[in-house]
Amino acid sequence: MIAAYQKSCQTRVDAALEDLFKAPRSELARLYQAMRYSVINGGKRVRPLLVYAACEALEGDISRADGAACAVELIHAYSLVHDDLPAMDDDDLRRGQPTTHKAFDEASAILAGDGLQSLAFEVLADPRRNPQDANLRLTMITSLATAAGPAGMVGGQAIDLGSVGRKLDQQALEVMHRHKTGALIEASVRLGALASGRADERTLKALQSYAQAVGLAFQVQDDILDVESDTATLGKRQGADIARDKPTYPALLGLDTAKAYALELRDQALHALRPFDEAAEPLRELARYIVERRS
Amino acid sequence: MIAAYQKSCQTRVDAALEDLFKAPRSELARLYQAMRYSVINGGKRVRPLLVYAACEALEGDISRADGAACAVELIHAYSLVHDDLPAMDDDDLRRGQPTTHKAFDEASAILAGDGLQSLAFEVLADPRRNPQDANLRLTMITSLATAAGPAGMVGGQAIDLGSVGRKLDQQALEVMHRHKTGALIEASVRLGALASGRADERTLKALQSYAQAVGLAFQVQDDILDVESDTATLGKRQGADIARDKPTYPALLGLDTAKAYALELRDQALHALRPFDEAAEPLRELARYIVERRS
Repeated sequence: MIAAYQKSCQTRVDAALEDLFKAPRSELARLYQAMRYSVINGGKRVRPLLVYAACEALEGDISRADGAACAVELIHAYSLVHDDLPAMDDDDLRRGQPTTHKAFDEASAILAGDGLQSLAFEVLADPRRNPQDANLRLTMITSLATAAGPAGMVGGQAIDLGSVGRKLDQQALEVMHRHKTGALIEASVRLGALASGRADERTLKALQSYAQAVGLAFQVQDDILDVESDTATLGKRQGADIARDKPTYPALLGLDTAKAYALELRDQALHALRPFDEAAEPLRELARYIVERRS
Repeated sequence: MIAAYQKSCQTRVDAALEDLFKAPRSELARLYQAMRYSVINGGKRVRPLLVYAACEALEGDISRADGAACAVELIHAYSLVHDDLPAMDDDDLRRGQPTTHKAFDEASAILAGDGLQSLAFEVLADPRRNPQDANLRLTMITSLATAAGPAGMVGGQAIDLGSVGRKLDQQALEVMHRHKTGALIEASVRLGALASGRADERTLKALQSYAQAVGLAFQVQDDILDVESDTATLGKRQGADIARDKPTYPALLGLDTAKAYALELRDQALHALRPFDEAAEPLRELARYIVERRS
């Protein structure tokens, strides 16, 4: 069931994203190609799915969530392009395809990432793409800017780079992940809830607890897959994190305890959704999927 | 007189900028240091000056323009950090100091730039830092995102990188500059005018003509200084653009014609300000300063 829901979210957000990459003049064609290549790549669209599912959990109209779904995916895509650069993780493959700096060149990848970030905020501010009242659009922009910025995702990447080869304890590892991936996952759920036009403080808080647990579960499972999965399934080199001596949950807790922890986080996520009725079923399905996925 | 005005704008925006670089936790200290290093560097603050001067031209309260002044400088600073990277212009010096990737490292410079861009939008969306009504804040965010993004500044940098070693005619050179530097200069003037709370379509249009002429004059004069000034005055290697075989106005038009063109653009800028009274004097002074400056 989550596969069908995921597919429909993917189709929906991909159509909205595709619309953003028409170069306004021929001189900009290559830049727009590099941006498009970085975004339209068969990605699973987990963050847009969270946007739509959170909107639906509050019985909102998902057509009002397309702008938010695009914006979080644009931020995610830009972060992958920059993370893959030689000066960062130096990855040649992403989802089985050459990374943007390999398919184009380093300068184009830096600029494509920069442009995708601007585009995310342009989309959220645009009433045609994000048809909310003005104050709601501003709250969404603040949420995304904070989550994407130095106190969020970018900060997490900085902590991650600073921690290679160092012994992190579980608390330090979670600080890193809460920033690096957790902040944008929380923002995705929050933006979806806001896009419904029906969010109050109490529901936003419950959904934040859900997002925190799901975000961490996602990361723990990623670490597990890095150990267990092969390169073809994963679309990147198996064991890449361990080879770089990056701290991982299996390395820290052992593989079995890491797996138990992923399940515990799933249960925390489901627990946070108790106040919601069956409209929150896609969010629940996703929490289950995250710890069951093989890639 | 412009020197005193510039100094007061610099002091004003630097105080507002300084406030942005307190790391929220110790793990993020180095990232915030890299961002601060990239911004608090004795820069001339031409774009914030344009924000304040445009606000004053409409007899607005400049304390309402601090957020806009910060935001345009954050975008400018991030663009310099990324432009200086080895994969881009590969510059070791900026304003006589090591560039961010030299003072820190490449990964930190990429992340600092990314974080500065997020911060610019966070500042504009924040009613405490940018105290305008909601629709005005959104218009400002749209203006800055468009100017900074792939159809603006980032696009200009892409055109520039694609044109190294190629023969551009004057029209193609101006397309590049209108994107690379012109878009953010136009946005600075526009944001300042919007921050006054007194801008109408007619004044915005006159100020846009001013900004287009000033932006191009700035670029022509930069090219002239690259030929005429020495490294110590310029804070970067003299002749750096020519050494890279980048297209420049002196190379295209000859030095004397380039100088005459800079003066003509100054006059166009002054002409666009005819509808304004003496409140626009700082904008006029700036147009004069740009073609007279030696660094």
